[in-house]
Amino acid sequence: KINPERLWSTLMETAQYGATPKGGVRRLTLSDEDKMVRDWFKTTCEAAGLAVSVDAIGNMFATRPGTDPSAPAIAFGSHLDTQPAGGKFDGILGVLAGLEAMRTLNEAGYETTHPLTLVNWTNEEGARFAPAMMCSGVYAGDLDMATMLAGTDRDGKSFGEELERIGYKGPETVGERRFKAFVELHIEQGPILEAEEKTIGVVTGGQGIVWLDGVITGRDSHAGTTPMPMRRDAMNALAEVALAIEAVALEFGPAGVGTLGEALVLPGSRNTIPGTTTFKADFRHPDAEALTAMEAAFTARCREIADGRKVEIDVTRIWRKDPIAFNSTIVEAVEAAAAANALPARRMISGAGHDAFYISGTCPTGMIFVPCWEGVSHNEEESATEADCGAGAQVLLDALLRLDAN
Amino acid sequence: KINPERLWSTLMETAQYGATPKGGVRRLTLSDEDKMVRDWFKTTCEAAGLAVSVDAIGNMFATRPGTDPSAPAIAFGSHLDTQPAGGKFDGILGVLAGLEAMRTLNEAGYETTHPLTLVNWTNEEGARFAPAMMCSGVYAGDLDMATMLAGTDRDGKSFGEELERIGYKGPETVGERRFKAFVELHIEQGPILEAEEKTIGVVTGGQGIVWLDGVITGRDSHAGTTPMPMRRDAMNALAEVALAIEAVALEFGPAGVGTLGEALVLPGSRNTIPGTTTFKADFRHPDAEALTAMEAAFTARCREIADGRKVEIDVTRIWRKDPIAFNSTIVEAVEAAAAANALPARRMISGAGHDAFYISGTCPTGMIFVPCWEGVSHNEEESATEADCGAGAQVLLDALLRLDAN
Ligand SMILES: NC(=O)NCCC(=O)O
Ligand SMILES: NC(=O)NCCC(=O)O
Repeated sequence: KINPERLWSTLMETAQYGATPKGGVRRLTLSDEDKMVRDWFKTTCEAAGLAVSVDAIGNMFATRPGTDPSAPAIAFGSHLDTQPAGGKFDGILGVLAGLEAMRTLNEAGYETTHPLTLVNWTNEEGARFAPAMMCSGVYAGDLDMATMLAGTDRDGKSFGEELERIGYKGPETVGERRFKAFVELHIEQGPILEAEEKTIGVVTGGQGIVWLDGVITGRDSHAGTTPMPMRRDAMNALAEVALAIEAVALEFGPAGVGTLGEALVLPGSRNTIPGTTTFKADFRHPDAEALTAMEAAFTARCREIADGRKVEIDVTRIWRKDPIAFNSTIVEAVEAAAAANALPARRMISGAGHDAFYISGTCPTGMIFVPCWEGVSHNEEESATEADCGAGAQVLLDALLRLDAN
Repeated sequence: KINPERLWSTLMETAQYGATPKGGVRRLTLSDEDKMVRDWFKTTCEAAGLAVSVDAIGNMFATRPGTDPSAPAIAFGSHLDTQPAGGKFDGILGVLAGLEAMRTLNEAGYETTHPLTLVNWTNEEGARFAPAMMCSGVYAGDLDMATMLAGTDRDGKSFGEELERIGYKGPETVGERRFKAFVELHIEQGPILEAEEKTIGVVTGGQGIVWLDGVITGRDSHAGTTPMPMRRDAMNALAEVALAIEAVALEFGPAGVGTLGEALVLPGSRNTIPGTTTFKADFRHPDAEALTAMEAAFTARCREIADGRKVEIDVTRIWRKDPIAFNSTIVEAVEAAAAANALPARRMISGAGHDAFYISGTCPTGMIFVPCWEGVSHNEEESATEADCGAGAQVLLDALLRLDAN
């Protein structure tokens, strides 16, 4: 039996790394705060008797030996980075629940056949460096390591430089280590479990994601003297682009969603009509073909907006992750673990992206969700209860032991 | 007769202070570049035998004595600051044409009855610190000096600190010195003179301006998991606000214009639905009542958008400058000066705001416009011809001598 209070107190302890005045966490990938929580994680894992190794893209692996040294490890974990204005649970719950499982086994003197490996995947959020789930993607061989290392944040700092700066470019070759299975616990980040009063989400798969970068080019001109019909206003074109993203999502709804989360308006002076705007868009759909159709509908709409407003709109797809389905053995192990603990559960697909999506291409993989308050995530007010976090950690431990036994 | 080549070469010489790679100028108020051009201006005026004085808000006055020491000075000039991505003519043409007039009188050994004072007004653009025409407004007693000194730029630096930092908080009491008349030469910044092949715009007045600051508050949430109908998306609300500004302008067109020139999208992460956006809007109309009605129509529309999108929209008016009419004596002097030089001219009102608007409340005031390429301004490609700049300077000098004679 895991110790929910201990799990909760490590959650609250780690929330200090990047704590914001509003009670949230700002721990961007490869920032000083990310280094702090990584240092804490390494020290704490070593104190629990785990052997810690870091790969060349910063993924961290903490291993508890099994009785069969030739057996492949069973892995679990999630990520320690957050959104710019994130919460205390997104990502880190899955890592700390794994730590709690390790501590529980240590206390019980329980020996598994397979080694157990707790993982912190680098840059799951994709907020500072795109795309999301970056280093599980590199581990899986789906994203190119050199390209990722060369990627820059908005201040022009590269991922590679920042990784070295915080001292987490490790000696291990990325993707060299493979697992028997991978299980990730996470808050749901959506409203379903709470609404249906279920404690456990048995995740069967995840929707597809497309990320698009856009640049709109009009002409800077004077706000007071330029007649309305002569304007080539990149802000008003951006407004139409934002509403087009929403319209396309609604057209492919309720499953499809679309978001314009970042934009810059340039040159950034009230009395200058903006000649340039940039935007970053996110489209999702559980069906791969529908996702393709959403992107096509959006880019067609951009061409109409460009014509109507006498501006240029360049749209580049910088990332696509197809919808995935998890392995039935893992799904069933999670479901059985929930039932064994008499926890109300339901099968569901994930609206958010997770490292488990990429890992599912390398070994049997599954996920466990627990509810969060009002389904709110990527928000400083994100919250989950001690009981639900504890239940999730218990299901994780039980599922791992079931997988170890087979 | 002024020397158009010398005027042009000083225009090109000063364009080096804040020169941008694209051939424009970035010389924000109270920046290092502003200090450089001010230093150049002071040295050059002194070399031309002018007495330079600076007031406590950074306005610079360079005076050539008249034969009657008790007569009030006739003043002229404009501003040396620029937009963040501005051109080589907006503002500085009026200052350098005034310098050219002084040099021409010196060479001719011409003595005026009234002293002549060339002025550089601080912060005409309003791009770094709001509002525009700030220090002519303080000089005129229409804007509060303490409030202006306390205003901050987007990095939180105050106007007062920056003024002291660049060493241009002068000993002279603001507004103490009053003039017999003020004449400002400026590029038109609009398309009319070029289209009608007129060299001189005889400016009879200027349209009114309202500046509004807005904050939209929704809720940060996850781009992948939050169903479209549950979103409180501050970006999509901003999009509707931008299009509402345009719609209101068109409703009050063709005279009315409206612009959303600055916006921030927060927290600024592609996979977080923006919970906060801010915007800065600019509305203009030549009729005061119509301007009031535009603001009212816009704020009503904001309330509808807020209701529809379950967000809060707070709009604050930070500035209003009513439409103004220039003094008929000055208008006629400018018109007569254009006619005497056989320059095609037309009367017009100004679409842009100018320091002359505030000065017109303190003494008889008028303006002279010259054409600029395609009416484009607040743009690095802004341009005007040597011949037109020279013609404007000649009309300025002739108008000053006409005013001196009366
Ligand atoms: N779980 C999570 O929030 N991941 C970030 C990637 C995404 O889904 O946008
Ligand atoms: N002349 C000029 O561009 N002034 C800036 C103030 C305005 O926005 O009109």
